[in-house]
Formats: sequence, C-alpha cells, structure tokens
Amino acid sequence: MQVPEVIINGVKSGQLSSLDRGLSYGDGVFETIAVKKGEIHYWDDHLERLKQGCDVLKLEGLDVDLLKNEVEQLVNSESKCVIKIIITRGIGERGYKPTQNPLTRIVQKYSWPEFSSSYTQNGVKVTQCNFCLSRQSRLSGIKHLNRLEQVLARSEWNDEYQEGLVCDDQNNIIEATSSNVFFEQDKRLVTPELMQCGVAGVMRKKIIEYCQFNNIQIEVREVKQAEITEFQGMCLCNSIIGIWPVASYCERKLSRTAIIDQLMAEFNR
Amino acid sequence: MQVPEVIINGVKSGQLSSLDRGLSYGDGVFETIAVKKGEIHYWDDHLERLKQGCDVLKLEGLDVDLLKNEVEQLVNSESKCVIKIIITRGIGERGYKPTQNPLTRIVQKYSWPEFSSSYTQNGVKVTQCNFCLSRQSRLSGIKHLNRLEQVLARSEWNDEYQEGLVCDDQNNIIEATSSNVFFEQDKRLVTPELMQCGVAGVMRKKIIEYCQFNNIQIEVREVKQAEITEFQGMCLCNSIIGIWPVASYCERKLSRTAIIDQLMAEFNR
Repeated sequence: MQVPEVIINGVKSGQLSSLDRGLSYGDGVFETIAVKKGEIHYWDDHLERLKQGCDVLKLEGLDVDLLKNEVEQLVNSESKCVIKIIITRGIGERGYKPTQNPLTRIVQKYSWPEFSSSYTQNGVKVTQCNFCLSRQSRLSGIKHLNRLEQVLARSEWNDEYQEGLVCDDQNNIIEATSSNVFFEQDKRLVTPELMQCGVAGVMRKKIIEYCQFNNIQIEVREVKQAEITEFQGMCLCNSIIGIWPVASYCERKLSRTAIIDQLMAEFNR
Repeated sequence: MQVPEVIINGVKSGQLSSLDRGLSYGDGVFETIAVKKGEIHYWDDHLERLKQGCDVLKLEGLDVDLLKNEVEQLVNSESKCVIKIIITRGIGERGYKPTQNPLTRIVQKYSWPEFSSSYTQNGVKVTQCNFCLSRQSRLSGIKHLNRLEQVLARSEWNDEYQEGLVCDDQNNIIEATSSNVFFEQDKRLVTPELMQCGVAGVMRKKIIEYCQFNNIQIEVREVKQAEITEFQGMCLCNSIIGIWPVASYCERKLSRTAIIDQLMAEFNR
C-alpha cells in the first residue's frame, strides 16, 4: 500500500489522537485536490467549499494561511500528485456536544493515480447501484466525513465497472459514488440538483460555469432514473479524473457527443 | 479535559494512522459500555450489536476474544468506569472501495460521569430538536461512526436541557440525541420503531425484554410527534445513564408514572 506523506497541525506525522472527533463521529470535512506541473488546481474553489462545509458544521477558527502553507510544503517540487485535506473539530470528550478545542488540520500527499488511457479514449463502463442515498438537506452539497453511504454503494461491484450511479429513495439520480454526472440531451447538458443529497464537486462547478460562459445550454434539475434512456451522452467528473466520457450505462451503449468532447478538450488538458 | 487510557490493536497508545477509514469515511462502529463494581454490564448484548454493525458494513475478521481481553485489561480493578469500543475497517488507500486490511480495534477507558442526583429524583428537562434525521433503512439500528446528524441536533442547546428528542422528516419521533425514549400511555409503554433511522440501544432492548417478561404492555411502533400530548409519562435510557424520568418536554410537565418507577427500580440499581 502506498503510504502518503502527512502533515498534521503543522507537524510531519501520520498519527492522530483516537479522541479526534473526526474518528468518533465523522465530525469534519475534506477536499481532494489535483496538483499538476506543481500547480494546485482550483485552490480557491476547493477552499470555498471547505469553508462552506466548516460553516454548515460550525467548525470555527480554520487558519487558511497555515493550511495553504502546509499544502505548499507537501507539494514542494512535486510536479503531479494528489493532495487530500481533512479538517475536523479536533479532539473531544465523549458525547456529541460540539467542543471548542482547536480544529485538526490534516494534509496528505498521494502519488498521482495513473488511469487507463482507454477511460478517456473509449469511455468508462458505469453501473447503477442498488443502494439509495438518504435525503438530508442540512448536509447536502458539502464534502463531510460521513461517507458510509458511498462506501456501501461502492461495495456493490469490483473492477467490472469504473463507476456506479446512485439515486435517492425517490428514484432521482444524484451522482456517482465518487464523481458527479452530466447527461447530454438534444445538444444541452443536464446535471442533477443536489438540494437533498450529494456532493457538489468542484469540477461540476467549473463545468457549469464553463457552459454558462460559452453558451452551452445547461440545466441543473431533478433527474429521474427513468429519464436516462432519453439521454444520448453521459460523462463523469471530479477533481482527479477530470472528465470521463461514459461508454455504457448498465450495458446500454452511449454516444460520444460533441459537447462532452468540447468539455474534455477544455478540462482534461 | 479527561484523557482516557487507550489500547489500539492490543498496544497501549492513544494514536492511530490518519489513513484509518474510521477517520476518512466514518467506516466503522462503536459501543459505549458501563462498568460497575468491576463488572462489564450487558457485554453479550453490546457484542451482539457490534457484530450486527460489522455484518451490515461487511467488516470481517473481528477477533472477539482479543477484544474482550483488551477490555478486561483496561477495566482491570476499576470498579466504575465507561468503556468505549471503536471498530473500523482499518487503514486504507484513497477511495471508497472497501479494503481487506485488518480491522482497527480501539478500546478507551473513561472515568464514570457523575450526573446530578436530581436527574433521577426529579426528572430531566427535554427539548425538541429542529434538526431532522434522514431515513436510511440500510444503516438504521446499528451504532456506526457517521454521527454528524447527532452532532448537529445536539448543538441546538447548551445546558438548559439534558436531552432533545429528534424526529425524522415525516414527524416521527425516533429517539433523543444520545438515548432512546419510552412513553407511558394508559398503563402501557410505547417506544418508536427504528426501521428507517435511529440507534437500537442496548438499554432499550433490555427494557423491552423486561416488559415482555413482566407482563407490562409494550408497543414498538411509529410515534408521531403530535401524539406526545396524549402521553402521561416519558423516560430516556442508555447504557450509561440507565433510565432518566422526564420532568418536562418543551416546558410541558410530565408525570412520574408507576411503570417508569418500576423500570428505574430494576435498571438504576
């Protein structure tokens, strides 16, 4: 197993207290960030979502300058790597009542995952997970540490697919287990709204902004699973994979459409 | 802050890897157990629920004998303390896909929390949380580490109440933030069913069994919040507090009923 370099609260160390509320209750948030040619991609967007998550959980006192220093210290001269940031409410007594202790900052540096070039050239195979996400408007959108639903959804297949779509309990498509999803229908893009569940990914945000700026019609709305048969194209996105075109969904073949090609040309450079 | 003694995978240490999936995703389960007069209370019941949780999350290979040894090593000659057990899927790479690494066993020993004697003598004050639990049948009942909902619910008050009831998004009362709830209505007990959310507490189970064995009528069913005005009595329970009678719910006074007295005589010894 790859052992990443880790800085915890400014100290190079891979260990943290078993009393940390990140462990006890998943009481924290995280970010996964691409570093390419030594550049931290979309730092401002990741930081914005991190702050939104801290606001929702009322995690107060995040020192953003310190955090950025720690990230830069780890990136150092690394041309291509993955940085994961975890912010928790820090150590705490037993009990759910939020504590006022200093937050824990964890920064981990992982080597870049090399994906098969066929994923972008030919597209990926996607399944539909049976597991349904619960609806919780108070926690939707942010990237918090309560991820058992994603773990259970991801446990439904091994390597026969690259991803799986997940619905809520009302047959609304929300996302894939670790990426967001866009559909192409009659030369416009559609992506699920995330008011009740799901993670609002940074790459999803960049794609929506790109479409708005480049006159590509984009709808952020409820998407029923049954609608998928009406879509001509599908792609997945997150900060690390960029954009993957989808070759098949539940064995049904999907086309490589012009808009998805355009997005890949823009974001997979 | 009280610093508990901790054993992690058999070693006296308070530190664990920042790569542990318990931290990354809340990928694990826990138990909180009362030790009185050196005796581990309801060990078999706690172990049963721990195993149920492991089954649901497909956490395989828990060495129960080792775990019990570690608990006994920490309890040692301690006459009264709280033992908390955390079992996680162990360390893992980045990504939700469940790993096959050895599970992490964490055992923590806390000093016994001394509650005001008025809680049992006069009853506790209970509020209603605005925060609603999400419905997720695949995770209900077990005591997993994804507890942000409880953290947010518990953050709604400080010390003006001892507990808060929590509903799902359909106005069903489920539980209190860290205890289960029983109501008394016309000489029978009522407690919420936990098919969609909530933690099925060990003390709740013991009370249900006691009622069935002692001819006290007990209903485990859907309980609407609006019904509470029809109930004469209310009590809360968990493994550490035992049973607390409720003096008031949202400022409305509740009676001390005969069945609740009987339960307290049985379980608060």
